[in-house]
Amino acid sequence: MNLNTYLKQRQTLVNRALERYLPPPYFAPGRLHEAMRYSVLGEGKRIRPVLALAACEAAGGKASDALHAACALELIHAYSLVHDDLPAMDDDDFRRGKLSCHKKFGEALGILTGDALLTYAFDLLTRANHGASVHLRVIREVAEAIGTEGMVGGQVADITIPRAKLDARAMEFINTRKTGALISGSVRVGALLGRATPTVYSALRRYGDRVGLVFQLVDDLLDKDGAVRLHGKEKVWQRAERLTQEAVAAVRPLGVRAEPLRELARFILTRSS
Amino acid sequence: MNLNTYLKQRQTLVNRALERYLPPPYFAPGRLHEAMRYSVLGEGKRIRPVLALAACEAAGGKASDALHAACALELIHAYSLVHDDLPAMDDDDFRRGKLSCHKKFGEALGILTGDALLTYAFDLLTRANHGASVHLRVIREVAEAIGTEGMVGGQVADITIPRAKLDARAMEFINTRKTGALISGSVRVGALLGRATPTVYSALRRYGDRVGLVFQLVDDLLDKDGAVRLHGKEKVWQRAERLTQEAVAAVRPLGVRAEPLRELARFILTRSS
Repeated sequence: MNLNTYLKQRQTLVNRALERYLPPPYFAPGRLHEAMRYSVLGEGKRIRPVLALAACEAAGGKASDALHAACALELIHAYSLVHDDLPAMDDDDFRRGKLSCHKKFGEALGILTGDALLTYAFDLLTRANHGASVHLRVIREVAEAIGTEGMVGGQVADITIPRAKLDARAMEFINTRKTGALISGSVRVGALLGRATPTVYSALRRYGDRVGLVFQLVDDLLDKDGAVRLHGKEKVWQRAERLTQEAVAAVRPLGVRAEPLRELARFILTRSS
Repeated sequence: MNLNTYLKQRQTLVNRALERYLPPPYFAPGRLHEAMRYSVLGEGKRIRPVLALAACEAAGGKASDALHAACALELIHAYSLVHDDLPAMDDDDFRRGKLSCHKKFGEALGILTGDALLTYAFDLLTRANHGASVHLRVIREVAEAIGTEGMVGGQVADITIPRAKLDARAMEFINTRKTGALISGSVRVGALLGRATPTVYSALRRYGDRVGLVFQLVDDLLDKDGAVRLHGKEKVWQRAERLTQEAVAAVRPLGVRAEPLRELARFILTRSS
């Protein structure tokens, strides 16, 4: 027998089988997974997940108790950015120093990547080792924080309310929802996963509500937009400072375990980007 | 005192208060809620929710046990249609005999309405009166059915795989995911909420997998697209018939309670739209 012929024949057989068994190069979720990773990994301050972990620890839990949920919150943040950047929305070509998702992968994949990130976030929220009833409450908190009474409602308000009608009340409506709802929701989720007692939960919720609003006010100060155009820089800054003091005071009874939350509140007030 | 003056003064006071206390006309979620209702209510065969209710009853549960989840499945279906119709995707101006969501409300609101429907579906899935662990499993089933390994993955495959590379394997990949995953997921969700025993669950899952695939094959037959272009009408029709027989056979052991499921399987095979 001719070994060379045999080898060649078998190599062809094996190569064809490999081609058949390996996921094909056009395996679509591969491309989708790439776009999801592109939109989440790399730069990003991870403020929402860090707040969830810190709130969990402040309530007496371990950071690892809230890790799945913390990641889900970052996926949700990323989904909102990917959809916000779309041409029909803010039409941004860049995000975090690189091409925005739809510029890199095309507009259709931009829409679907956001959809997939949101869906996968809820998938993640069902995982890890807590009691089912805690998970369920966490999922409901998140769904409400980002639903029509929360983040999406705020985004719709932001794009549909005419500039001329942006009075103090409309502004407050947008501010507490568009950004604030997910920030304060992150704190509540951490508190739930840290099995906070009712008193501690209530303190953390007060903290989260204030920090969420401060986050949006500081965004406005940095962009010279929103509340700043309406009330002026000085007044907005004073309010943000007062809210931060209230947030810090709210978690004072929690002692040394809440120290990271107090530092985070000050960071959110004084951040420059 | 002059009653007329008094009345006028008080009327003005009251009218101003009403204006302040009533949700303003530009109250954004109002517009969002309108777009959500527009995209869900009216026409629509409600096949996914009906399958969930029928599977719940076939497993021995009451239809009302699966009603929240059934509605959530229809919201998810509506979300996928709203995003599919967007200009960057299929660019459809009409849906169910009226303007598509983005044509009626604008493209930005089209994106956000889909997002809100998806989010609200998960919110709904946390509600009703089942044990938390059943809810949690249902949420995970739904998230997987519509995630990157399910519906969204199938949609991405559908738009990214070049027509020339649409071989039998790629076609099967798309068919089992794009439409089939949510259909079969609906049956599994109903089975879980009807507290199916492992044997019954497994029978219902076999039923759902087949009906999900038949649904997509019939779509292809009606559109003369996909599997039909590849295999020809005759072969696709034969396969759809065989799968339907298998689906009917899978739930035969469940007796009279599964009669609606058997009728639904035949309806899905023979529907003309």
